[in-house]
Amino acid sequence: MDPGLGPGPEFDLIRSFLRDLPRVSGDVVRVGPGDDCAVIGTEGITLTIDMAVEGVHFRREWLTPEEIGYRAAAAAVSDLAAMAAEPLGLLVALAIPAPDGDEAKQVMQGVAALARSVSATLLGGDVTRSPGPLVVDIVAVGRTAQPVLRSGAAPGDELWVTGRLGGAAAAVRAWRSGDQPAPAAREAFARPTPRTAEALWLAAQGGVTAMLDLSDGLAGDAGHVATASRVGVVVDAAAVPIHAAAATAATDDDGLAHALGGGEDYELLLAAVAGRGAELADEFRTRFAVELTRIGTVVEGSGVWLRQRSGAVEAMPLGGYDHMRMEEE
Amino acid sequence: MDPGLGPGPEFDLIRSFLRDLPRVSGDVVRVGPGDDCAVIGTEGITLTIDMAVEGVHFRREWLTPEEIGYRAAAAAVSDLAAMAAEPLGLLVALAIPAPDGDEAKQVMQGVAALARSVSATLLGGDVTRSPGPLVVDIVAVGRTAQPVLRSGAAPGDELWVTGRLGGAAAAVRAWRSGDQPAPAAREAFARPTPRTAEALWLAAQGGVTAMLDLSDGLAGDAGHVATASRVGVVVDAAAVPIHAAAATAATDDDGLAHALGGGEDYELLLAAVAGRGAELADEFRTRFAVELTRIGTVVEGSGVWLRQRSGAVEAMPLGGYDHMRMEEE
Repeated sequence: MDPGLGPGPEFDLIRSFLRDLPRVSGDVVRVGPGDDCAVIGTEGITLTIDMAVEGVHFRREWLTPEEIGYRAAAAAVSDLAAMAAEPLGLLVALAIPAPDGDEAKQVMQGVAALARSVSATLLGGDVTRSPGPLVVDIVAVGRTAQPVLRSGAAPGDELWVTGRLGGAAAAVRAWRSGDQPAPAAREAFARPTPRTAEALWLAAQGGVTAMLDLSDGLAGDAGHVATASRVGVVVDAAAVPIHAAAATAATDDDGLAHALGGGEDYELLLAAVAGRGAELADEFRTRFAVELTRIGTVVEGSGVWLRQRSGAVEAMPLGGYDHMRMEEE
Repeated sequence: MDPGLGPGPEFDLIRSFLRDLPRVSGDVVRVGPGDDCAVIGTEGITLTIDMAVEGVHFRREWLTPEEIGYRAAAAAVSDLAAMAAEPLGLLVALAIPAPDGDEAKQVMQGVAALARSVSATLLGGDVTRSPGPLVVDIVAVGRTAQPVLRSGAAPGDELWVTGRLGGAAAAVRAWRSGDQPAPAAREAFARPTPRTAEALWLAAQGGVTAMLDLSDGLAGDAGHVATASRVGVVVDAAAVPIHAAAATAATDDDGLAHALGGGEDYELLLAAVAGRGAELADEFRTRFAVELTRIGTVVEGSGVWLRQRSGAVEAMPLGGYDHMRMEEE
């Protein structure tokens, strides 16, 4: 649920407000606000809420209604993956300008397609008219015996990432420039694949100490791990796997900027005890046909640091990707 | 979650779409879409989603930001009560024109105040900018050992209702006419009280066969019981308890119209085996200082019927209250 709060200073107020609330059901709540999901009860029921607003998270000119639904559901299910939770079902709330038309049905078909892809069912819905933007709010419900939190990383751990980064950001950049994005970039934005099976497998192998999904951009999300785990994180610029569409559409530095600052890749970022990632990487790649790349190291201290190709290490601002800015730029 | 779907024909499409989806996690899902909440897992975790949209469910001129949050949370928690579920926590998604300002914080304070009143915690949140209306989406999470469904009513059962009806509708009517509502009507709209303790107590006594919360108006919600239970329902016009603000603001017939067609009273409507309600009513009133009134009978057949004060029985249209129409009228 954190992606919507975002890393921007504008939400510090609300974030602190959420955290300061009394936790009156503390015996039932195993993980409260501040991680990707809440986890409740003896069964480890895992819950996250993710709201997508037209003009903020997407534009209707960019996506079909079916893609809007698919993408919103993928973002929520990705939060379950980040906790190593098996998806069970979705609840969907739609506010839609013409709720009786085909568009509402098409959005729901997109949600349903994503749900089927992760063997989740639809638990319920609420559809209402919107006098303004299309709003798709998805609650993903899962189950985890042993949630992987953001807070478990320790100095000496290694930082790994699944897949390649920056594809969705390359698509947004093309649209904003008035161009059509490359098909692979468009696909990365419109149909992200939550790394559900990958996360469950990784967590089951042991040695994964922290995990989240990349929704705010690598810089911001690495910052979440650093803050939650009270550690520093050093990212190797040369090691970050850049999505082909981001790499070809720009200079090397632009590709890296897309990966670091561009949001919504919905890949996994994880910390693992030293050596464990290397032991798992080959089988992971074979099993899932997805890359697993070591991109950095967890250190004592705080903040996120970027080791440049030159060898120089610089502090990285934690701003990351800010959903608020999409329309203003 | 049904209130947002509403009884209007415009949602038949979406409603049928929700129901036709495969239930791939059927062993985990104890109650799926179509009741007030979904119920999952061995612990009976109970989930509902309820979206409130400015200009559809409320207007900012009518309510303070704190009341907007309180009311939205009350509506969701009322769905838990309808299943006889104990509240555990809330997830909140806000889309708000100026998310960094005091308004977001005030909405959250309203949500938190309602949460505290039912000993629920805040499980998480997602706050984003809205380019249009203020949207408050609340997920209420509870737990029930024995959910009371809409589908358990049988011919011969009696129909009972808590509290008095039509107060919120009287407030909306006053605002629409350019008047200020009576304080009691305004309070009924702005600060509805979910009947959580009442529902848990009633369900624990046994003999309650069906229950829901009144969000679509008595006519529409009685229709939900009739449809789900495959029975008919006869409501006695003379027995319906009219809210003082609705009764004084209008003729007798107008007061009844507010109760039957006006939505969002968030009182409980229940069916109980013959005689059970009468056995419970005195203790209920003493315990909760809330009325419990027999308003009708469950019969063989289908649909909702109104027994007029004259004795004549007429079919009641199931239209009920339609959230879609608030702005159009």
